Amino acid sequence: MSRLEEKTIRSTPIFDGDIIQVQVDEVELPNGKRATRELVKHTGAVSILAVTEAGKIVLVRQFRKPLEKTILEIPAGKLEPGEDPAHCAARELKEETGYTADRLEKVAGFYTSPGFADEYLHIFEARGLKQGEATPDTDEFVETVECTLNEAFERMARGEIDDAKTVVALYLWQNRVLRGG
Amino acid sequence: MSRLEEKTIRSTPIFDGDIIQVQVDEVELPNGKRATRELVKHTGAVSILAVTEAGKIVLVRQFRKPLEKTILEIPAGKLEPGEDPAHCAARELKEETGYTADRLEKVAGFYTSPGFADEYLHIFEARGLKQGEATPDTDEFVETVECTLNEAFERMARGEIDDAKTVVALYLWQNRVLRGG
Repeated sequence: MSRLEEKTIRSTPIFDGDIIQVQVDEVELPNGKRATRELVKHTGAVSILAVTEAGKIVLVRQFRKPLEKTILEIPAGKLEPGEDPAHCAARELKEETGYTADRLEKVAGFYTSPGFADEYLHIFEARGLKQGEATPDTDEFVETVECTLNEAFERMARGEIDDAKTVVALYLWQNRVLRGG
Repeated sequence: MSRLEEKTIRSTPIFDGDIIQVQVDEVELPNGKRATRELVKHTGAVSILAVTEAGKIVLVRQFRKPLEKTILEIPAGKLEPGEDPAHCAARELKEETGYTADRLEKVAGFYTSPGFADEYLHIFEARGLKQGEATPDTDEFVETVECTLNEAFERMARGEIDDAKTVVALYLWQNRVLRGG
């Protein structure tokens, strides 16, 4: 056992939902003492940095029940178990915005909240966008919003964009613009 | 009711832990249909972008039970209910790394995973760092790692830094360096 590792003594399932599973683990700490860890399991998610030929990022406005408000995000969705992330990215982009892409390339990925959740989020960049009709899930209501890099950074500065994946996507886009890509 | 909003019909508590609360809400969708939403409640967290006089970012290596592995992150911690985020940032920085700061300024903030959780994470920038002795919680085992901006971006490119708040902090730092700040 490494000097930082925690060893599972007992794992108690709490909740088995459609989106998350919750469990409480009793662990042995590196010093031999015990502690409990509250854990949320999630299959992971993908999101898409999509910039149109007109140089605008494609965002969606969506009501988020955990926040009890509507926020502005890059298109995203939950991975089905075993689903190829690139396939999921193409599906969510089409469903939420109507756009299809010639190419989808993974450009970043991170754990959203490693203190309590195992959710890993991929960011794909979509190239060669073609507009089509959105086909949202039956329980999904989204509006597409497009804005320039400057407008997006202004919205972020005003706190109107305050979602982890969207903040990272804006910096990725800014870096690409600065590199002339 | 706005055109995107979901109205709560019934809320069922599932789990009331020390770190998270879990509930399942039945909602009425904008089209009048019903759906369920699995929600994780969290008091929020702070994290600290701390760059030493030698131009190195202060990171911590920590075992994260949800991931079953050790990862590299900026110092961070959970807000106590009602706690001032700047106070929490000073406390966590000292506890985890031993550093104290002359000034702590909020430079970013975002929801980590708005699809299922209400956790909001603040990023504070620490200025005027002074080294001292770390005083971690009794159930917390962390190692401090310091590296340059280039090293940090190389680690990110290799997937060795893959945590939302740390990725955002690195871009904030890079932007500040590019602006000559």
